[in-house]
Parts: sequence; C-alpha cells; structure tokens
Amino acid sequence: MQLAVTEAWKGLGATWTNPRVGAVIVKDNRILARGHHHRFGEPHAEIDAISHLNSPSDAKGATIYVTLEPCSHYGKTPPCADRLVDLGFSRVVIGQADPNPIVGGNGIDRLTKNGVVVDNLDNTEMVNEAYNFYYRRKRPMVTLKYAMSLDGKINQAGNTRTQLSGSQAWEDSQQLRRLNQAILVGERTYHVDDPQLTIREADAKTQPIRIILMRDARHLDLTAKLFQTSAQVWILTSHRPTASLPEFVKVIEKPDWSPAAVIKQLGDQGIQSLLVEGGSHVQAAFVKAGLVDKLVAYISPFMIGGTGLPAVIGPGNAEMLHFATPTIQSLGDDIKVTTRRAD
Amino acid sequence: MQLAVTEAWKGLGATWTNPRVGAVIVKDNRILARGHHHRFGEPHAEIDAISHLNSPSDAKGATIYVTLEPCSHYGKTPPCADRLVDLGFSRVVIGQADPNPIVGGNGIDRLTKNGVVVDNLDNTEMVNEAYNFYYRRKRPMVTLKYAMSLDGKINQAGNTRTQLSGSQAWEDSQQLRRLNQAILVGERTYHVDDPQLTIREADAKTQPIRIILMRDARHLDLTAKLFQTSAQVWILTSHRPTASLPEFVKVIEKPDWSPAAVIKQLGDQGIQSLLVEGGSHVQAAFVKAGLVDKLVAYISPFMIGGTGLPAVIGPGNAEMLHFATPTIQSLGDDIKVTTRRAD
Repeated sequence: MQLAVTEAWKGLGATWTNPRVGAVIVKDNRILARGHHHRFGEPHAEIDAISHLNSPSDAKGATIYVTLEPCSHYGKTPPCADRLVDLGFSRVVIGQADPNPIVGGNGIDRLTKNGVVVDNLDNTEMVNEAYNFYYRRKRPMVTLKYAMSLDGKINQAGNTRTQLSGSQAWEDSQQLRRLNQAILVGERTYHVDDPQLTIREADAKTQPIRIILMRDARHLDLTAKLFQTSAQVWILTSHRPTASLPEFVKVIEKPDWSPAAVIKQLGDQGIQSLLVEGGSHVQAAFVKAGLVDKLVAYISPFMIGGTGLPAVIGPGNAEMLHFATPTIQSLGDDIKVTTRRAD
Repeated sequence: MQLAVTEAWKGLGATWTNPRVGAVIVKDNRILARGHHHRFGEPHAEIDAISHLNSPSDAKGATIYVTLEPCSHYGKTPPCADRLVDLGFSRVVIGQADPNPIVGGNGIDRLTKNGVVVDNLDNTEMVNEAYNFYYRRKRPMVTLKYAMSLDGKINQAGNTRTQLSGSQAWEDSQQLRRLNQAILVGERTYHVDDPQLTIREADAKTQPIRIILMRDARHLDLTAKLFQTSAQVWILTSHRPTASLPEFVKVIEKPDWSPAAVIKQLGDQGIQSLLVEGGSHVQAAFVKAGLVDKLVAYISPFMIGGTGLPAVIGPGNAEMLHFATPTIQSLGDDIKVTTRRAD
C-alpha cells in the first residue's frame, strides 16, 4: 500500500476536485504494474495501472492495491469496479472507502457481490485530507497559514511587507498551495503585499482559485500583480468594480462576507479546500468563527517587538480554539508548526 | 570530560554566583574519584573529588578532568591549583579557562610552571552559560521567557490569567528558574497573575531574587503571594512603599527603570543572569533595548484569537532582533523553542 500511496501523490496539483489515487498490481509476490490518477478528467489509477500490464489477461487472479475504494459510477470514465471484475482480479486491497456519496461503499459492494475479496486497510486518509473532510463535514476544509516572528508578529509597523521566512519555508508554502483549491487573502494583505497567489512553477498543472475579500471593489486597481497572471480570481465584495475585468476574474457581490458566508459560497461551488493566507484581521475573523481546521505556522528567528503586527488581531472569540499536539519541523532557520483542530 | 560535566550539573541551583564545576580523577584508565562543587561557600569540585580518593597519595601521577580551570586565588577556600601541584597530579584536563579575571589563566600558569601538563578541551562552556557571559560581556545575561498560543498570545482579553502550558512545560520553566539568579516581572503581571516566582521544590537550595518593576509602589499590597515566601524580593520603583516591609524585601528607588538601568543595577550587585517572565510590555521594553540574549518560548496548541494579548506589545524597535537557528523540543502538547541572539 505504501507504494500505492507514493503513486497517488504523483497526482498532487493536477487532480483538482478528484481525489489523488494510486494503484499497484501484484501477483505471485511480484509487482506487475503501477499507476495513478494523473489529472482531472483522465483515467483513474486502477485503469492507469492496468494499462501498464504486459497484457490485460495478467490481471486474472491478481491483487490490486488501491489507495481509495474503486468507483462504481459512470462519471468522466466508466466504473473501475466493473473493470476489475471483468479482468478477473481475485483481491482488491483498498486504503479507505470513498466518502463521496456517489461511490460510498457501492464500489466495495459491486466487487464482493462478484466474488472479489476486498480488504480495507483504512490507512490512506491523509492522502486526500480535504476531499475526505469535504464529503464528511459537508464544507471545505480551512487551513490558516502565516509566517511569524518568535514574538508572534507578521510584520513590522507600517504598511511595508516584512520578509521573515527563508527559502525552505517559502518552498514549503508553495506545496501548501498545491494542496488547496482556493487561496484567500483580505484587502490589506492584497494592498500591502501585492501578491500573485500562484504556484510559481513553470509546469503547474492547476492553479488554485485566488480569492480576495474586499469590502469595496469599486476602484479596483487592475495593475496589481494578481491580474498579470491568468489563473482564476474571485473577488468577494459588497461593491463590485466599475471597470471592465479580464475574463478570469469573477465578482461575487453580497452585503456581508462573513467567514461562514465565504465557506458556504465555496462549498456550493464544490471547492473542497481553502488556504487562508492573511492578513491578521481575516485570520481573526476565521478564528472567531471557529472555521480553522488546520493551522500551518512558520516561525522565523526574529523578534519584531512591541509595535509589530500580530499574526491574528481583530475580532475576538469568547473561547480559545483547541488544537491537537503539533507536528514540528525545522526548515532551514525556520520552524514549521502543523496542527489540526482537536475534537 | 562528559562524566565531569554530569558531576558539574549536580550543583544546579546551589552554587549561586559560583560556577557549576565537576571533576573526575583517573589513573591507569581507572576512575578513582568524582566530585563537584556542591554549594556556594563549600569546597570546589577538585577538592571534593580528592576527598573521595581512598588516600590523597593516590593522586600522585594521576590525571584530573575538571570542567573549569582550577582556581589560583584565596577566596572562600584556598587555591585548587596549588593543591593539585602539592598532591603530584601529572596532568589536568580542563573544559574551559575561567573567564573570571581573578583566575583568568593564572590557574593554568601555576600548574604548568610546576610541571603539570594542562590540556584545554574547550567544550564545557554551556555548563555555565551565564557565568561566562557575565565575565566576558560585563553584564548579566538576559533570558526572555513566555508561554504563548499558536497565534502568539499570552492571555485572553481582560485581566484574568490564561493557563496555556501543560505540566511538562511548567516543570521545564522551573528548571529555567534554577538557571537564573534573578527573575523579573512587570507590575501588570504581578497584579494579574499574583505569582510566587519561586522554585517550587521542598529542597530548593537557593531561590532566585524576585524582582518587581513597579513605577509606583506606595500602595503595595503585602497580602500578595510574593510576600508569603521569604526568598528575596527587590522592588524597583520610582515611589517607595509607605508600609513597613518584611526583611527579605529590598526597595531600590530611581526616577526611571529602563531595561539598561535594571541590568546595570543587577550587574553592579554581581548578579550574572536575569530571567524576564513578562508581561508583554516589559518584554517589549527589553526587546526594544536589544537586551535579549536568550529566548525561551513555550507554544501551546491553542488559538486565542483577535483580542488576545500578544506576548510582546508596547514600545517598538526600529530593527528586528535576529536570533540563531532555534532548538525545538516537544514537551507534552507544548513546543519549547530555545534560541540565542545571533551575532
């Protein structure tokens, strides 16, 4: 299964709302083929692995390890469960059942009813953390991310950007963008940082939707870096821009954009994961709303001092949010702290 | 030498302004005796080790490993270097030269002039970090310590104390107190937390001096917990208390107590190490003054949110302070981050 997981991760940044899935075909203690879901709309991992067999007849009596329950429905491709039955696989070892209700156990049923042995190892959940979250909790998974000093500040005083993180932390935060379908920043961050919010990679297969929360977008500045790359931009605003906009920019107007309203909007559009990248006030709003499922904080070896801008400031919450024991990682001079909301 | 270091640490919390020192006597590849400096005013490590020999004559031709250059002066005890010569040690391996100018190489000189071979391994500096700092930099070493949430806050809004750290972090912070001769808090922390600032241990051999920075101490409340334990208290104030005070309380009056003035006062009194335990404004003042030599931050798995009190807030500094790559340690659910000012 570990090999299948490695296969699955090859789809990172390319499968969009589809799960990352990997598969390995084994017979007589020999690996016959491996495969993964390459890209949204393309064949599933099982079919990809089968295509790498010397002959489809090799599948007869073989075992396939697949990180997720094979599908049972006609989507962009025909059901994988049927194909596995047809080819005569004797055993299917899965890493987890599919939480998507259009599969949800039907794949397993179809296999077992046709005499295929199915074992669920229940150990691949983290390959598709947001996908699982989305189908179980019926809303996108929210990750808060910030880079802060040892004294919990993200910026020195004033309206300039302070560069805290080193190159390894920067690389890692790019990886974090690949794990999310949408990135959100507030208008101050948009103005102060003038960010691109893209994955900086020549061959990035998909780019996250770049979302700006902007109360009043009437005087939107189209020379900002954000508009120089053609990945999708959504502007969530109460006052739509007066200028005409590039095709990749979508404006959604509502009188109030609370974090709950943002999450509802994204969930309704099928977005499974949101990365909130600041600033301090937006972070505080999400913390206050309890809409923080995962936190990634990069801590850099500086003290900014008494007038620095705290990572989270603004609307307060009555209760602290409790998180699980964090995972810690050294990234050059920086520390990466990763943790999830404790139940 | 590692055994001698282990011996040295046995003096933790007991040697006061004396360094922690350990010694191991070896002859013919056998350990004959070990010793350490037990307590301020008591025999030095070398003499303690010698006292554990079956007979002082065993020292003839032996090697002594000692974590610090043997002393050459008459202090509370006669010079160790002379004793080592008299007993006929053939070799003295030291972990570091003594930065205290009353020794400062004289111990080594006296040994070599009398035909004893001296080797300096230069690898025990961290046993007496503050002692070394004090004699080299001519001022006490300042450690800032705080326990903060994942979003860099030490407290929820309002004047109540928020308990963030778990028991392991609490134990560790007690250890930090043992490493410092003085602990300082500002008046808000004194009022909100009502701290004891002692080492909570029945057999604590010495207690750090407990220092309160309090602009106006005229209406000092003597029912505070601080005054229920008889370890030394220093009140640094601009307006001395009107009430009569217990004997263990000393008041030092000055119109202004900047961090530099505090450090000058402590240095003049021979205090080698200061632990600043908050609150946020006091921390900011020390950061602004650049008087942070070491930082220990405990990070707990909570988010306090937008109205929480940042770990450092108040007077700002023009430049960020830069620290070395931090050491990270998991303590239960908490993370301990330790780092030193980068040069």
